[in-house]
Amino acid sequence: MLREAQLSICKAIEDIDGGAKFQEDAWVRDTGGGGMSRVLGNGNVWEKAGVNLSVVHGTMPQEALRAATERGVNRGQDAVPFSACGLSCVMHPRNPHCPTMHFNYRLFQTAGGNWWFGGGTDITPSYLVEEDIKHFHGVYKDVCDRHDPEYYPKFKKWADEYFLIKHRGERRGLGGIFFDDLNDRDPNEIFEFCKDAVNHVVAAYGPIIEKHKNDSFTEEEKRWQQLRRGRYAEFNLVYDRGTIFGLKTNGRTESILMSLPETARWEYDHHPEEGSPEAEFLDACMNPRDWV
Amino acid sequence: MLREAQLSICKAIEDIDGGAKFQEDAWVRDTGGGGMSRVLGNGNVWEKAGVNLSVVHGTMPQEALRAATERGVNRGQDAVPFSACGLSCVMHPRNPHCPTMHFNYRLFQTAGGNWWFGGGTDITPSYLVEEDIKHFHGVYKDVCDRHDPEYYPKFKKWADEYFLIKHRGERRGLGGIFFDDLNDRDPNEIFEFCKDAVNHVVAAYGPIIEKHKNDSFTEEEKRWQQLRRGRYAEFNLVYDRGTIFGLKTNGRTESILMSLPETARWEYDHHPEEGSPEAEFLDACMNPRDWV
Repeated sequence: MLREAQLSICKAIEDIDGGAKFQEDAWVRDTGGGGMSRVLGNGNVWEKAGVNLSVVHGTMPQEALRAATERGVNRGQDAVPFSACGLSCVMHPRNPHCPTMHFNYRLFQTAGGNWWFGGGTDITPSYLVEEDIKHFHGVYKDVCDRHDPEYYPKFKKWADEYFLIKHRGERRGLGGIFFDDLNDRDPNEIFEFCKDAVNHVVAAYGPIIEKHKNDSFTEEEKRWQQLRRGRYAEFNLVYDRGTIFGLKTNGRTESILMSLPETARWEYDHHPEEGSPEAEFLDACMNPRDWV
Repeated sequence: MLREAQLSICKAIEDIDGGAKFQEDAWVRDTGGGGMSRVLGNGNVWEKAGVNLSVVHGTMPQEALRAATERGVNRGQDAVPFSACGLSCVMHPRNPHCPTMHFNYRLFQTAGGNWWFGGGTDITPSYLVEEDIKHFHGVYKDVCDRHDPEYYPKFKKWADEYFLIKHRGERRGLGGIFFDDLNDRDPNEIFEFCKDAVNHVVAAYGPIIEKHKNDSFTEEEKRWQQLRRGRYAEFNLVYDRGTIFGLKTNGRTESILMSLPETARWEYDHHPEEGSPEAEFLDACMNPRDWV
């Protein structure tokens, strides 16, 4: 199912691009398992897009375990045997009016019979277009509601908390859904929910890109996008659980850091002009809103 | 003394640039202390350069303490009162033939009478010019030798270990000296050593910039510099002790992340061509050499 989803999402992304094709790399992890990375670079629409499937096993240090789950499982052991499979994806378009999108859905199992699902889909524009964000969140609210009416409010809030760049008091983007350590019901039910969420990535994100992929933009708008991509890199390298887990468990660096933008920018003490579209966007990153 | 050093280094950097001037920001830390950040942007030679003086106090969580020192001080306490002062600096030139340089010298004191010095100066070129690196390391060997003949070999090796980007098996650059948790002799002696090290930054680094600041370069060389700056950002955000300490103790984000390059780049699975100058440089990052 993961492989089918990977291929169908890549196909949709290639169609939107109308030029570039995904390249596929199969890789084996020294300490157990492997994966299939598909990356598209230098496209018409996409600067960098990647969809990564991985099925790994081995032992993870307690530190990595703590980074991966909020439940302390197998306390007292130094290293815990585990297996994990998942699909993750980041899409960075060129146009500053096209948002970046990320999703990740994964299942972990550790020795002793513990298991949990984690995942989410979130959107990171550089500018706020309310109807786009309402559409994106709306698709995920519908997906959630089909499985549990409590999911969307809970997972939307969780995304707002998770994607916070703590040292800045701002989120990397405008959220979506996020959950981790989910094991409160039959695993097949959670699996069906994850499948539904993966299968609605294109419906949630595709129309926004189609709408904006040919928007004109200024040099200043591109520069603002680059500054936001600096924030994206900051979040991923300092706080992202999957990135930290991967780097600390000898994951394949290139597949993990595929999530980083092709280009990023940092300017000292940059503040957008009051009342500008950049300031309006930043306000939405600092003060999460209800979109649906 | 820190303030004098800050001003004289800034003056030397402005002279090399021949255009841009440092802007000064005084800041106060909510939880105690403050600092003086001096930043130069958009120069002829420098894309971004900053020299930051800070004198802070407060309490630090054990986690931050562990990130700051390898000695477990005041074990058993959740938060430890501390004070710290230091001078730190990062210089990112525009020209890919001009190396980035960083230094940081600091004194920590915690409740209970513990204290230690930490610091170092290191160089991060994008290309290997042996005589430049020999000059840089040579100046620091001389500084070290004046205080203890064991310092240079020990601190050079420490820099090679410290500046390792573990998940890549490569260092961010070509090292220099690094030490932490230094308290094995009279504090005045260590202070004199730190002072000597700070006072030789310009002698070690300035001539290399003067030599290369007008070198011509290709688009490909600029791209390689950008990729190396991606590595620099990776190191700072994932591994750098000072950065992690600062972000976790409510330091001033803009002063801490002043160290990030203005622009950075990540390409999926990039490898320089065998036998190229880029590959030669990378080899020196993966296999530390003796320069003096």
